[in-house]
Amino acid sequence: MTTGKINVSVENIFPLIKKFLYSDHEIFLRELVSNATDATLKLKHLTNIGEAKVEYGNPIIEIKIDKENKRIHIIDQGIGMTADEVEKYINQVAFSGAEEFLEKYKDSAKDSGIIGHFGLGFYSAFMVANKVEIITKSFKDEPAVHWTCDGSPEFTLVPHSKTERGTEIILNIAEDSLEFLEDYKIRELLTKYNKFMPVPIKFGTRTETIPVPEGAAEDVKPETKEVDNIINNPNPAWTKQPSDLTDEDYKNFYRELYPMNFEDPLFNIHLNVDYPFNLTGILYFPKLSSDLQIQKDKIQLYQNQVFVTDNVEGIVPEFLMMLKGVVDSPDIPLNVSRSYLQADGNVKKISNYITRKVSDKLKSLFNENREDFEKKWNDIKIVLEYGMLSEPKFYEKAGDFVLYPTTDEKYFTLSELKEAIAPIQTDKNGKLVVLYASNKDAQHSYIDIAKAKGYQVLLLDSPIVSHLIQKLEADNENLVFSRVDADHIDKLIQKEENQISKLSDEEKEKLKVSIEAVVPKENYTVQMEALDSTSAPFIITQPEFMRRMKEMSATGGGGMFGMGNFPDMYNLVVNTNSELASTILHAENEESKASLVKQALDLAKLSQGLLKGEELTAFVKRSFESLS
Amino acid sequence: MTTGKINVSVENIFPLIKKFLYSDHEIFLRELVSNATDATLKLKHLTNIGEAKVEYGNPIIEIKIDKENKRIHIIDQGIGMTADEVEKYINQVAFSGAEEFLEKYKDSAKDSGIIGHFGLGFYSAFMVANKVEIITKSFKDEPAVHWTCDGSPEFTLVPHSKTERGTEIILNIAEDSLEFLEDYKIRELLTKYNKFMPVPIKFGTRTETIPVPEGAAEDVKPETKEVDNIINNPNPAWTKQPSDLTDEDYKNFYRELYPMNFEDPLFNIHLNVDYPFNLTGILYFPKLSSDLQIQKDKIQLYQNQVFVTDNVEGIVPEFLMMLKGVVDSPDIPLNVSRSYLQADGNVKKISNYITRKVSDKLKSLFNENREDFEKKWNDIKIVLEYGMLSEPKFYEKAGDFVLYPTTDEKYFTLSELKEAIAPIQTDKNGKLVVLYASNKDAQHSYIDIAKAKGYQVLLLDSPIVSHLIQKLEADNENLVFSRVDADHIDKLIQKEENQISKLSDEEKEKLKVSIEAVVPKENYTVQMEALDSTSAPFIITQPEFMRRMKEMSATGGGGMFGMGNFPDMYNLVVNTNSELASTILHAENEESKASLVKQALDLAKLSQGLLKGEELTAFVKRSFESLS
Repeated sequence: MTTGKINVSVENIFPLIKKFLYSDHEIFLRELVSNATDATLKLKHLTNIGEAKVEYGNPIIEIKIDKENKRIHIIDQGIGMTADEVEKYINQVAFSGAEEFLEKYKDSAKDSGIIGHFGLGFYSAFMVANKVEIITKSFKDEPAVHWTCDGSPEFTLVPHSKTERGTEIILNIAEDSLEFLEDYKIRELLTKYNKFMPVPIKFGTRTETIPVPEGAAEDVKPETKEVDNIINNPNPAWTKQPSDLTDEDYKNFYRELYPMNFEDPLFNIHLNVDYPFNLTGILYFPKLSSDLQIQKDKIQLYQNQVFVTDNVEGIVPEFLMMLKGVVDSPDIPLNVSRSYLQADGNVKKISNYITRKVSDKLKSLFNENREDFEKKWNDIKIVLEYGMLSEPKFYEKAGDFVLYPTTDEKYFTLSELKEAIAPIQTDKNGKLVVLYASNKDAQHSYIDIAKAKGYQVLLLDSPIVSHLIQKLEADNENLVFSRVDADHIDKLIQKEENQISKLSDEEKEKLKVSIEAVVPKENYTVQMEALDSTSAPFIITQPEFMRRMKEMSATGGGGMFGMGNFPDMYNLVVNTNSELASTILHAENEESKASLVKQALDLAKLSQGLLKGEELTAFVKRSFESLS
Repeated sequence: MTTGKINVSVENIFPLIKKFLYSDHEIFLRELVSNATDATLKLKHLTNIGEAKVEYGNPIIEIKIDKENKRIHIIDQGIGMTADEVEKYINQVAFSGAEEFLEKYKDSAKDSGIIGHFGLGFYSAFMVANKVEIITKSFKDEPAVHWTCDGSPEFTLVPHSKTERGTEIILNIAEDSLEFLEDYKIRELLTKYNKFMPVPIKFGTRTETIPVPEGAAEDVKPETKEVDNIINNPNPAWTKQPSDLTDEDYKNFYRELYPMNFEDPLFNIHLNVDYPFNLTGILYFPKLSSDLQIQKDKIQLYQNQVFVTDNVEGIVPEFLMMLKGVVDSPDIPLNVSRSYLQADGNVKKISNYITRKVSDKLKSLFNENREDFEKKWNDIKIVLEYGMLSEPKFYEKAGDFVLYPTTDEKYFTLSELKEAIAPIQTDKNGKLVVLYASNKDAQHSYIDIAKAKGYQVLLLDSPIVSHLIQKLEADNENLVFSRVDADHIDKLIQKEENQISKLSDEEKEKLKVSIEAVVPKENYTVQMEALDSTSAPFIITQPEFMRRMKEMSATGGGGMFGMGNFPDMYNLVVNTNSELASTILHAENEESKASLVKQALDLAKLSQGLLKGEELTAFVKRSFESLS
């Protein structure tokens, strides 16, 4: 039997890093700035606990481009390294400095925001550089050293004259990466990844005008001076306590996150928890445009103020992915698949926590200023309705704040609605009938008729509303939803009283025959009804069940398989008590009967939006002729 | 000065692999089956060139789950390894066996489909296993060995009694990965990644019925037998020559790729090139549903028959991402960012090649069977129109096959169209005016009027058509597009002749005053025109320029900034030669004038789809009353 140690061939580690470690070359800068930040925060920690007897001061990190020599410099004023530490942390690949540091100072370091994820980050430098140099001086009283490596495993290490504490990384940029020598490119990367890192990052200088002192002579011109151009905000809003922030602070931070966005958010939710997981962040409800596609990928994920990704799938519940904002948590595993994320206990807890915070916030907004909440309803309803359908935990709480607006812009919660309509919208079988419209314009005549009866008509116009209605019916006994044009209003909410028919059964039958002679059987079922004589003579209705199933099938999931391909089914309700019914019945001859029926059918179709194309053109032409 | 070698600490290589190398644990099976395939194909190659004096036979790869002992076995009958080779290929991490093999047999191996990308793949086993064993016997006359490693760098290597050639990998599955012991899970992974790998893969057995021999007694029951269940098709259509494939073969392969898809593709494009890059594949034009979102991510990318991803962004031109099918190329770099892909010369060439093959195929389909091509137009137009807008190389070729259908279902190429309409659709300034509609129903009356003049009206109803029209106008001098409702037809194509006005200028002015008293100024500009007396009395038009700019702005890009928020602008064209114009002019009093104008305006609005909601309800009510 042989035993032994698996040996990692050193010649191959750089190609391996280059090829597999990171899919995106540009993250080299994130990694190196993260290391510089680590080095600075480590020094802060050591001075705080008294292990480093030096002045911490106001350290910054500086990025410099030396275009002429094709170099990028990343300079920090942090903890630095001795020759021994370079040997240990740099020459021993996969020996994570941050990890060992964490091990040593475990408890005291935990809260000081030290990044532990990017231990291998330094080597990402070789993705863009053909030679990398480190000039570093430790905070300890030891000489500086200068390390150089050209991407082969051979390195050199010589003393250096550097006297200030800290580390300077010099990247000699390779020919295939010269784009990173452009100012705009580096600014773009710093803005993307390092915008909120906790140590100030200097990139170049900018000119600042010094105000002319008051009382100076009129011809005194204001002077200017060069100041450091700090690219980041080291103290972003989400790292602060909610009690220290005003509404204006939240709005300002929103503008900082989305400078190209001109509209203010509707409201925000500050996330802040440290047990059983660590998470901070601010979520914003934006004004949603009708195009939902554009709205995704707007929440940014950070780890200890380092930007990681704008894909928060699996971390934030799906229905909240239309929100904007920031989530910062060191407890979210990176570089793992979605299915892995879903199985991860911490991630599940995070997702539940976010759901709970959002519903708590919505409830308090509703309770504190209902009027304002109603005003915002139209912009937030899609998110909330989708949440009710997709998150059981959210659905449970939704009763407290989800609104059902009427076509007259009254807003009810579900329990308020039930109470309001119970007296007159309960039918003879004890079912409570909720009437709704999906479009105020298209269903105007039907809404009018329902309102004339004193009924409330909801306006439910989200694309997923048929699914929501289906769910509400299932969960609320004796509650049914009917669109206003699903039948004649007296049939939608059937009461005990019966209308007296003006026509005899024989006359009705005769009338029906005349009508069916004109109306195409394959599209319409003719229903003779003795309704109020002032009701419209002809009304086209579309039964609720089929229409809803088709809608559910069209918006994905639910409904019945293949239902989307069914033809639309309509009823033609003829009011036998209307004047027109008598006029048709007593018309001189079959021709004038047919012409009356045709015109009445066209008018009924107009009300239901069904008169189109050639039929409409003929109707308009006929009408113009009769006008002249 | 110190120099030295960077040392990779071996303790840390496994966590590194586990954490960074692959984002998705499930790919362990792809990697191990790929290795087994490599080992088999290597043996085939060696027997072919006479370096291995053994029978190649009909080797398969077998996957077995041993649920009781929590193990997965992957067994091949390939080249196997000697003890020395295990030491070299397994114990030396990052020493790629495939690479070294390729180096040695460079030229002869090139065409035999040996996978060189997954050299590190073996170690992915540790993502799901806490102990990995290799039992392997080389094709050379050397004893088998048994290697075991528990994820620490220590391994053991002992002789083994295995006598058949080949390698068996045994994964002792870790507690957090027990899902991989489920049959359905392994079947899912094999189907996803290995469905078309070139060596048969056995997973379990299935029962096959042996047909009863002819002439057997009637009571003889058919016997059954257990046969190997082969999970893959080792010779998928794209690896064959187009000349060896029938239409039915292509359709069958489509069904194999998309078993849940019930519609046949419209046609296919076989890709096959080996210089300057290697690429095979088959692209299909599917019947496009109206929902384009669903259609993306349908092209699968393979490397030497191993599934890699269904995200071909950057490789296939964007406008072709709505197609389905397979692209197989070893020359596409993996694990790199989109920007890197775009900069890669090979990838750019691949994308151009695909564009060219697609346009060649479209041209030949058009030339060979124009009638059939016209029938398919509606299903392919979105892709082609989008291609014209986004790919200059495709736009250049598009003149040969892109069609412009009329509302009467005639199909013209652009040059045919110009020729057909030049005689009567050239206006007095020499501009050739192309009339189009975006909706046959909604613009029916306007189409009717244009057709009555003998004009051709195109039906251009894709969402991006306004952008396309804009481009065609820019590239074709003296060609203008006008939607049929952009103005009165005589104004859209202005000729020299002038209509004689029935009304005097004074009468016209009087009429205009009466009309403007009723028609809201903020929505309509009233235009008095002496048109054909049989033309409609009132017509509402919407000027082309503003409408097109708004459409372009709504479908993203182009148009003018903020144009989307402009209100719609309409003209009310009054035909002063119509009978109704005289009727209004000579009506008894202002009240009946106003009532006539109101009714005429409502009818014009109906034709343009502008009479809605309350106005429509009132119109219908009024009309019902006048009927009775």
